[in-house]
Amino acid sequence: MDKIEHIGIAVKDLAVSNALFEKLLGVPSYKTEEVASEGVRTSFFKSGPNKIELLEAINDESPIANFLDKKGEGVHHIAFAVGDLEKEIERLKQEGFKILPGFPKNGADNKIVAFLHPKETNSVLVELCQEASS
Amino acid sequence: MDKIEHIGIAVKDLAVSNALFEKLLGVPSYKTEEVASEGVRTSFFKSGPNKIELLEAINDESPIANFLDKKGEGVHHIAFAVGDLEKEIERLKQEGFKILPGFPKNGADNKIVAFLHPKETNSVLVELCQEASS
Repeated sequence: MDKIEHIGIAVKDLAVSNALFEKLLGVPSYKTEEVASEGVRTSFFKSGPNKIELLEAINDESPIANFLDKKGEGVHHIAFAVGDLEKEIERLKQEGFKILPGFPKNGADNKIVAFLHPKETNSVLVELCQEASS
Repeated sequence: MDKIEHIGIAVKDLAVSNALFEKLLGVPSYKTEEVASEGVRTSFFKSGPNKIELLEAINDESPIANFLDKKGEGVHHIAFAVGDLEKEIERLKQEGFKILPGFPKNGADNKIVAFLHPKETNSVLVELCQEASS
């Protein structure tokens, strides 16, 4: 785990939250990206070596729609940067963590990503991400 | 906002979660600290330029006891490092954010800290922290 790559925050209205986080962080969003396979529209902000990712659902089947229904807006996941995703997954499996079904796969922001089951991580949804080009 | 300084995670049992996060992050906790004024015992892990702070309640009046009762274990707050806390608070007030009563004050890990009201931040509890010695 090299650093906190980003924190993912579920929001109801990306335009409203983009304006809010621009004020909060003092910088504008540098990218908006739709990940159709996950049913989300995302917006990214930089904070030094880290990022904030806002996530809006684009359909009712989106995991973000489900999250907003159950918990409302707020922190959805924490993503850690890893150099070698496969190796890190192997290490974590040995330690008793579980990878969510269907991962690893391509995520937003040119990353290959995998999520750990929050049952083993104090209810924190943990993402691991590796640069797709590395 | 210079970077994500740390992510605060509310846990029921610090010893159990210390063991869990040591496995997850691949490094041991480098510090345990009690903040009596907040009713918490904390444990810190490094992840590159960032930290994970685990928070356990040490009495029933602790904000962490209240959080665990309402929401269970999980992400409690996100802390951003700032160089000049007073200046950043002024900037944020101008932008319409509210500072929680009683802050700024001394926090864990040699920091002066302030929290923003989550009503204005998509229900994310945001902490600002400045090195106490800077």
